Amino acid sequence: MHPHAPATPKYPHILHGGDYNPEQWLSYPDVLDEDIRLMTLAGINCVSLGIFSWADLEPEKDHFNFEWLDGIIDKLYKNDIHVILATPSGSRPHWLADEFPEVLRVGETGQRNIYGHRHNHCYTSPAYRERVRLIDTKLAERYGHHPAVILWHISNEFGGECHCELCQQEFRRWLKEKYKTLDALNHAWWTHFWAHTYTSWEQIHSPTWIGETAVHGLDLDWKRFVTDQTIDFMKAEISAVKAIVPELPATANLMGIYAYGVDYFKLGRELDVVSWDSYPEWHLPGKNAEIARNESLSHDMMRSIKQRSFLLMECTPSTTNWRSISKLKKPGMHELSIVNALAHGADSAMYFQIRQSRGSAEKFHSAVISHAGTENTRVFREVSEVGRMLKKLSDKVYGSASPAEVAIIFDTETKWALDKCQGPRNEGLDYFGIIQKCYDYFWKNGINTDIVDCDSSFEKYRLVIAPMLYMFRGGIQEKLRSFTAGGGVLVTTAFTGVVNDTDLCFLGEASEEKLSDVLGLWVEETDSLYTGEYNSTRWNGQSYRLSEICEIVRPVTCETLAVYDSDFYKGSPALTVNSFGNGRAYRICSTPETDFLDCFFGELAEELGLERAMNCKVPEGVSITWRENGSERIVFIQNFGDSPAELILDREYRDIFTGKTYTGRLAVEGLSSIIAVG
Amino acid sequence: MHPHAPATPKYPHILHGGDYNPEQWLSYPDVLDEDIRLMTLAGINCVSLGIFSWADLEPEKDHFNFEWLDGIIDKLYKNDIHVILATPSGSRPHWLADEFPEVLRVGETGQRNIYGHRHNHCYTSPAYRERVRLIDTKLAERYGHHPAVILWHISNEFGGECHCELCQQEFRRWLKEKYKTLDALNHAWWTHFWAHTYTSWEQIHSPTWIGETAVHGLDLDWKRFVTDQTIDFMKAEISAVKAIVPELPATANLMGIYAYGVDYFKLGRELDVVSWDSYPEWHLPGKNAEIARNESLSHDMMRSIKQRSFLLMECTPSTTNWRSISKLKKPGMHELSIVNALAHGADSAMYFQIRQSRGSAEKFHSAVISHAGTENTRVFREVSEVGRMLKKLSDKVYGSASPAEVAIIFDTETKWALDKCQGPRNEGLDYFGIIQKCYDYFWKNGINTDIVDCDSSFEKYRLVIAPMLYMFRGGIQEKLRSFTAGGGVLVTTAFTGVVNDTDLCFLGEASEEKLSDVLGLWVEETDSLYTGEYNSTRWNGQSYRLSEICEIVRPVTCETLAVYDSDFYKGSPALTVNSFGNGRAYRICSTPETDFLDCFFGELAEELGLERAMNCKVPEGVSITWRENGSERIVFIQNFGDSPAELILDREYRDIFTGKTYTGRLAVEGLSSIIAVG
Amino acid sequence: MHPHAPATPKYPHILHGGDYNPEQWLSYPDVLDEDIRLMTLAGINCVSLGIFSWADLEPEKDHFNFEWLDGIIDKLYKNDIHVILATPSGSRPHWLADEFPEVLRVGETGQRNIYGHRHNHCYTSPAYRERVRLIDTKLAERYGHHPAVILWHISNEFGGECHCELCQQEFRRWLKEKYKTLDALNHAWWTHFWAHTYTSWEQIHSPTWIGETAVHGLDLDWKRFVTDQTIDFMKAEISAVKAIVPELPATANLMGIYAYGVDYFKLGRELDVVSWDSYPEWHLPGKNAEIARNESLSHDMMRSIKQRSFLLMECTPSTTNWRSISKLKKPGMHELSIVNALAHGADSAMYFQIRQSRGSAEKFHSAVISHAGTENTRVFREVSEVGRMLKKLSDKVYGSASPAEVAIIFDTETKWALDKCQGPRNEGLDYFGIIQKCYDYFWKNGINTDIVDCDSSFEKYRLVIAPMLYMFRGGIQEKLRSFTAGGGVLVTTAFTGVVNDTDLCFLGEASEEKLSDVLGLWVEETDSLYTGEYNSTRWNGQSYRLSEICEIVRPVTCETLAVYDSDFYKGSPALTVNSFGNGRAYRICSTPETDFLDCFFGELAEELGLERAMNCKVPEGVSITWRENGSERIVFIQNFGDSPAELILDREYRDIFTGKTYTGRLAVEGLSSIIAVG
Repeated sequence: MHPHAPATPKYPHILHGGDYNPEQWLSYPDVLDEDIRLMTLAGINCVSLGIFSWADLEPEKDHFNFEWLDGIIDKLYKNDIHVILATPSGSRPHWLADEFPEVLRVGETGQRNIYGHRHNHCYTSPAYRERVRLIDTKLAERYGHHPAVILWHISNEFGGECHCELCQQEFRRWLKEKYKTLDALNHAWWTHFWAHTYTSWEQIHSPTWIGETAVHGLDLDWKRFVTDQTIDFMKAEISAVKAIVPELPATANLMGIYAYGVDYFKLGRELDVVSWDSYPEWHLPGKNAEIARNESLSHDMMRSIKQRSFLLMECTPSTTNWRSISKLKKPGMHELSIVNALAHGADSAMYFQIRQSRGSAEKFHSAVISHAGTENTRVFREVSEVGRMLKKLSDKVYGSASPAEVAIIFDTETKWALDKCQGPRNEGLDYFGIIQKCYDYFWKNGINTDIVDCDSSFEKYRLVIAPMLYMFRGGIQEKLRSFTAGGGVLVTTAFTGVVNDTDLCFLGEASEEKLSDVLGLWVEETDSLYTGEYNSTRWNGQSYRLSEICEIVRPVTCETLAVYDSDFYKGSPALTVNSFGNGRAYRICSTPETDFLDCFFGELAEELGLERAMNCKVPEGVSITWRENGSERIVFIQNFGDSPAELILDREYRDIFTGKTYTGRLAVEGLSSIIAVG
Repeated sequence: MHPHAPATPKYPHILHGGDYNPEQWLSYPDVLDEDIRLMTLAGINCVSLGIFSWADLEPEKDHFNFEWLDGIIDKLYKNDIHVILATPSGSRPHWLADEFPEVLRVGETGQRNIYGHRHNHCYTSPAYRERVRLIDTKLAERYGHHPAVILWHISNEFGGECHCELCQQEFRRWLKEKYKTLDALNHAWWTHFWAHTYTSWEQIHSPTWIGETAVHGLDLDWKRFVTDQTIDFMKAEISAVKAIVPELPATANLMGIYAYGVDYFKLGRELDVVSWDSYPEWHLPGKNAEIARNESLSHDMMRSIKQRSFLLMECTPSTTNWRSISKLKKPGMHELSIVNALAHGADSAMYFQIRQSRGSAEKFHSAVISHAGTENTRVFREVSEVGRMLKKLSDKVYGSASPAEVAIIFDTETKWALDKCQGPRNEGLDYFGIIQKCYDYFWKNGINTDIVDCDSSFEKYRLVIAPMLYMFRGGIQEKLRSFTAGGGVLVTTAFTGVVNDTDLCFLGEASEEKLSDVLGLWVEETDSLYTGEYNSTRWNGQSYRLSEICEIVRPVTCETLAVYDSDFYKGSPALTVNSFGNGRAYRICSTPETDFLDCFFGELAEELGLERAMNCKVPEGVSITWRENGSERIVFIQNFGDSPAELILDREYRDIFTGKTYTGRLAVEGLSSIIAVG
Repeated sequence: MHPHAPATPKYPHILHGGDYNPEQWLSYPDVLDEDIRLMTLAGINCVSLGIFSWADLEPEKDHFNFEWLDGIIDKLYKNDIHVILATPSGSRPHWLADEFPEVLRVGETGQRNIYGHRHNHCYTSPAYRERVRLIDTKLAERYGHHPAVILWHISNEFGGECHCELCQQEFRRWLKEKYKTLDALNHAWWTHFWAHTYTSWEQIHSPTWIGETAVHGLDLDWKRFVTDQTIDFMKAEISAVKAIVPELPATANLMGIYAYGVDYFKLGRELDVVSWDSYPEWHLPGKNAEIARNESLSHDMMRSIKQRSFLLMECTPSTTNWRSISKLKKPGMHELSIVNALAHGADSAMYFQIRQSRGSAEKFHSAVISHAGTENTRVFREVSEVGRMLKKLSDKVYGSASPAEVAIIFDTETKWALDKCQGPRNEGLDYFGIIQKCYDYFWKNGINTDIVDCDSSFEKYRLVIAPMLYMFRGGIQEKLRSFTAGGGVLVTTAFTGVVNDTDLCFLGEASEEKLSDVLGLWVEETDSLYTGEYNSTRWNGQSYRLSEICEIVRPVTCETLAVYDSDFYKGSPALTVNSFGNGRAYRICSTPETDFLDCFFGELAEELGLERAMNCKVPEGVSITWRENGSERIVFIQNFGDSPAELILDREYRDIFTGKTYTGRLAVEGLSSIIAVG
């Protein structure tokens, strides 16, 4: 029995396939037949259907046309290809916007969009919700019980915001529910500043550059509202389809850590299974390993949301069309990037797209079947090889777990707050940068890591890292206090614990609100460095550069481990540690360079004896992770370098494909991987 | 008899003069008298009048005031100065916008302009068309038969677009006429993509960033409509004046190859003679020769539109006012730039402007008569020297031809399509760059070249170059096939022949639609390189850099002449040739550096024995072209370098001014020219 | 008796304190008590109150709530803390915008703001003026005679513009009053250009990017109107409070030379005393002396407006929150920057802010009392030291004068005109740069300098510098002519004297309008150089770089002192002098490098025997200025370098704090100052 219940119980196998848009080809009947032949050749067992089919499913209001889709689903199923069925709300037909202009989003200046693009409906509009409910219900009734259909794909890449009057009203209602009184809201938002005190709920308007952007509490609550309203819309869709087929699970496709407009932790928790669309920019000269680390961080976050395996819902077989430079995936890279997803917890390899679009915006996005229309292409051959690989892996890997003893906190609300933060460094506080730098040590050393948020539980971890966690919210102080007191190790970096959940600064010198008791210090001043300007610190006999901001801290009970080397705060602590209960808490008072973090976390990892995928020196550019399927430990060794890399194995491993056993020296070719049990 | 019928039959001489704006000086009567004296001194024989005079000709609706203009035209004529009479539609009076707000353009967001600027009327507005027709008719009636008036100058620098409701309606009408059915339009625009299928003509709206920008067929058709509507407006003006004076020819002033918002080939073909406004940025340090090549390319395009001599309608006597840096023309440069226009087919040298404006936006644009108001300036003296030169040249040069055996295709529609193209290189596919690079070889070697478009005839050429001709439209495949089969040499570069005329990709492997038969290959993949990243190829023993994009082609019948040196497609063809009928067709599969093209075209030119202005080695920075007047061959030798250059003449030449004969070594001073017969 | 009447007669002492916003802390009663204790500790004797209190003073229309403020003012006064009372018009309450939407500004496109931010009311709105008059009157009635209240602080940081219909009407009214007839306006604005002749006053609209931006006379008059309307609004506020308390003086806080949207000379002349908010970006690496020079220039301008000592109304105790990088003030810098203000004529040291805001946009702007809330911080200690210093200085410095023999003309209208100027160098004519370069010599050599405008009197000066004074207006020609004829020395640089006050170019060759008689030359051409491109000139045996623009001048009576070294105008004058009456006038024909100006002005200063603060060589980074209090000469020696600097004193000086006398060598520590009498 695998640790995780299957994400797709009707077809509990690693999924291979992708977005399929036959509605673009209905006037090319030969093409549709050829697609089946080619998909079968490529080892495709699943497609996502219907994402942009609304105009073909309901060409006029209340006139439905499902026949074409009936035929396609039946034919797919006959050929052993399963279906992830999408609700079509990601892009509405023209007629819907004609009849109900309220479905079109309104921008910050109050101007309503003209029909166009996608992913841009008003999530409040009752009319849109009703039309979506209707088409979703029809789809569920017609296809929900079809044996081919294994999962709901709710809408597409949720995101964005609407400033229409309906949304304003809902926002005010949401605020009333949250704050009850205007006095409470005015205090939380600190509106006596600049005489901005609200004296009526109707005065509240979403942040806009032609109105209010100075009230950061308003900004934050607006972003929270946008997330909540998006979730509410999504849940309405889930309810519609589950009303008909309660047992069919639902996913929505997210977009990784950088797409933080919506709080994915909050939204993802409402799904049966998280899926995401991953488009790393491979082949930036000399950067593949770095890109793999970015990518892995997002995979780990996606997995951590529901603490289980996730689905890779989209990736490209070769190039994108929307980058400034769209490079081909070089030979080997496609398979390697799929292996990386599996290595971090994916249970699928799905592409955008099966057949390349002929016209409009995405015609140069690559596909399994290119404009040439044949199996006679390099890309088709590489996809087919992946198909064969996944078929062999499925039994062992599908639903297996990714155990982790380390958690790094990425909190979407801190990111929102830092984006609007005025001072100390408007040119940029690199929140993603410091998270990535902390993550990299663990990636480079074969230590599985979770990416969690303030609402997560930290109980299962031995090391929790809170890089630049500016906002303490959701009672995280108590959770971190009890985690540390219970023997955990907590690491914080500069600008952690500055404000409460409405962006009000904590007052006073040392205080529990700021975790001063746990950290043993308080922060008196925060200096800001120009880009290219550095301070430095010596630690363990080495000198390390510090950048961005430098906190001047006032120790209370903490011990100073390293100090600043220059500026007027030379000699002031740059690294401290404080014993607290059975654990201890560190403060890195600035933004250190990667080498420092590698050494710092290296010491901690050794001391704590954190489990590694393999007890060996990991060559540069190589990543090793593991998953556990209840009976076996599956190790994924990936080489993102162009040249072969050599490992010295700590024990015997058995190749999952060939059954061959490895001991001692193991060479991994450039841009390739080995998956082994051991 | 000169090859071309005269552009200005009432005064068949090289025109010298420029825009004259006496309406700015009506309250300075001395100034107007002084202008005549100074123009005569400067050898000015023609002025453009009335371009911005509407407010003075019709100060109130239906109240006309022509007296001031009567006096000026009479006085000019008495002083042997002829008139190019402009219709004043380039800038409307305030009252017209007050009374008919529909004449003001509407932007993408639907906001109508407030009155201001120029060249910004709605070209659809019936009210504007009617008021323009009325004033044009009045002008034609009053001045059309005046002996001074030799040419109509229709409006000014047509361009731009309007998104008003009237334009939307016309656009829909235009589309209905083109596509007949929505099914046809939906297929052509590939709208089943993203559920954007149109189900009513009324749903169609011009592309706008608050609406639709993802449907590239819509974008293309919008741009075509804008061109057609602009032409329609222009033709209405031409009809109005020709209804009164059918025999007086009409021009409109275009703006060279970079002003491609309107398809100049299409618009220019509706004129009796093409004219254009040329403002090269001379004296960019070390760049004069390069600038001359840019400039010459535009001259050649302007000439090729109607395959006859053109008019230089505007250039500056010294500086512009609208550049980031407005440098003076250094001594000699003014004359040299006029010679360059003549050398490429101009029959005039007209300036913006005769007298420098005293206030508002253009007061620092230079003029023949500066703010000092006297002949006592360097610029006035240089203009006067040009006047004397033109008088001497007129008989031999006016109306002479510029024979060419080489054509380079620049197609405005391909430029439009590439601008919107998503993938493979959104950072930029340098269409102008590759055209210029191909052109440069011929410029540097004294070979006259035409710049043509897909609608041109290729029969008269021996070499046709189609650089990055992304879109095959207007049956160009058949024309190129028959050109090649008939013995012509065709050269294509990467990303040629990708889509049809609605931006739908050609499907299948090799096909005639893509000219696979002529080229002997098809393209499997197109890789994109970062800026600063290169591949390379060896050809004829030399290594050359390749940039931007690299096509991975699949040879069918072609021969591989050179291959890629690196990346995973190392060894794959980078240059191919295919014999086809009596001719042959080349594919350069990437964007090569200039040196490659110089060598490549050098071999071709020698092999084909293309006619050169002079059979000699042309020093760097020197350009040689020729015109033919029916009895003589006039050679223009120009040195854009700062130092003297030396040529070794292939035969005897006779200086057109001095009558002196040249043989053997000939020195040309820096920034100067020699015009000779031979 | 000090030279200047006291700025604050009710409390004639150097003010120390700053913006105090107790309305943000009304729900924290302990905080308010603690504030008094801490202010007293810090030597604070004055606070600015009420700037953003409107929402708390009048929470609903016509419902006033003064009780909280009564208590605060009383308590402050009991603790010897005085009050600068602000009118609250800088930021209106929500309800006011709800009830009178006309108070919200309208942007260029005609869109009205939504409520938000501050400093953004329509200055025309009758409703706003009436509501402001009402609250101002109430404040004056209640507090105008309170012994604590010593000065009115009218609104806050006036600036910006509104394009609403009310403003358009006022603008038209203002224009009618100025021009009387449309003919006059059309000539002044040169509107026959591009057929833009106005035929009705109603056609006039403020400049906007969706309408007119090509008519520079319109631009200029619009900016003048904005200044006049702002002044009119301000004067209405002053009248309201002076109607109740005629004797209480009024200030408004300006923002230095770079905030030129409003003409500060014109506005400042309407105040009893000028004050300003100064936020230099200290600690840009290696730039402190340069920053001090920028800062000093603004101080000198603020002082010159009313030719008397001014108030420093805001500066930061340590960091700002709105810079891209907000650095801490390093130890010593705070005191030094306060000394610099005093050295240039300040009679106060006021901060933004007393207590650091807890939330919203400015929470990370530093304050005397930080979030820690205690005296236990470095910043608090440094502020307290300044408090002690100011107390000791007050008797000698308060109200003392800053005598100057040199004036540099900075004219706001020239800056406006240059900003819109099309040609010769749209990339930038660095008006501020050339002013600063001229100023720097005097700063570096201990010579007090005034910064004046065209409306100033030049009689008291011996040297007047007019750098790039593009626009001659207000009869300045006659004033400069009589100044020079009377024995003064006038220095002009390139692009001086080009246009009249409606931006019409002066016509003709030499003319008195252009000061050709005084300068002995006229300008034939103006060349423009690329950034990084230089000409040069040799003068006094040295070669100097010239940049930006090069005038080619035609000498009439002037003598050529130096010539251009290169380009086609090599040998043409680059520096000229002309004797005129008893004086003489120089033309620097380009933009020279600093070294040239240092040498050039060095010769002039020596020759004229200009008074220096101290006759000694001033080390780099050191500034010396003096003030005179009627009986003593107070010398401020400041070292902006990081290392000690040594001076060799010309006579004996007595330290103002210690009474110690200095002779011979005097060392000044890095980032520190010495204030002495002598």
